[in-house]
Amino acid sequence: MKKALFATPQDAEAAFYEALVKRDLDAMMDVWADDDDMYCVHPGGARITGVERIRESWRQIFAGGQDLNFRLREQQIIHTMMLAVHSVYEDISIAGQPRMRQPMIATNVYQRTERGWRMVVHHAAAAPGSVKSDVPDEPATKTLH
Amino acid sequence: MKKALFATPQDAEAAFYEALVKRDLDAMMDVWADDDDMYCVHPGGARITGVERIRESWRQIFAGGQDLNFRLREQQIIHTMMLAVHSVYEDISIAGQPRMRQPMIATNVYQRTERGWRMVVHHAAAAPGSVKSDVPDEPATKTLH
Repeated sequence: MKKALFATPQDAEAAFYEALVKRDLDAMMDVWADDDDMYCVHPGGARITGVERIRESWRQIFAGGQDLNFRLREQQIIHTMMLAVHSVYEDISIAGQPRMRQPMIATNVYQRTERGWRMVVHHAAAAPGSVKSDVPDEPATKTLH
Repeated sequence: MKKALFATPQDAEAAFYEALVKRDLDAMMDVWADDDDMYCVHPGGARITGVERIRESWRQIFAGGQDLNFRLREQQIIHTMMLAVHSVYEDISIAGQPRMRQPMIATNVYQRTERGWRMVVHHAAAAPGSVKSDVPDEPATKTLH
């Protein structure tokens, strides 16, 4: 299987959120490394470890069929040669829902591999409050999870 | 101010949870680096950035006066030369509360500095469910936050 090559953690992060919005499971798993120790925590969920379980969790989420929009803000980065820790607020909206957004805080960790930068951690959790959408045609909801 | 020197991320993590249990603010801040980009997400809380705000958040938590016990389990580690990402389940109990524990998932990131390994990220969020304490004299609660 030919995988995309991400030259920077930013490239990997962009591909992660693009895959999420498009509900593209193969593209999503292209972003992740193949490490047994990598893990994913969906908001309110348990920790999911390893490539097969992580793939299955995204498959189920994408099968849910909701069109999600992500607006990212306040990105912070801690970057070393081999690992990059990104923190970002995700304002998530769902098509067809009232015009509110539920903010999440995600810690995303990327590791430099021989096949470019890959995600090894996604830990997302609900942040307090919700914010009104300032985009009229971008509806959202308070209860994503 | 003389700070402790942590030779490994494990040493820093042990000191972090010891400071938490003891509600020792100076010991807690000894664990953290001095980086402006470091951040802390308490369960259900907003992202707190920088040493002064992080210190203030722990001061308020410790002033709350609850005696917390932490039992850690299922630690996973992603370790490179300069950064170590630890993930751990925290089973938290409060003295004087019913005998249940609220599990949390924490992502703790440690960075190698010229003064040893220091915490640069603590991101904690509630995990689903709660587990019964198997220690008779260790009470807990379902509603920590």
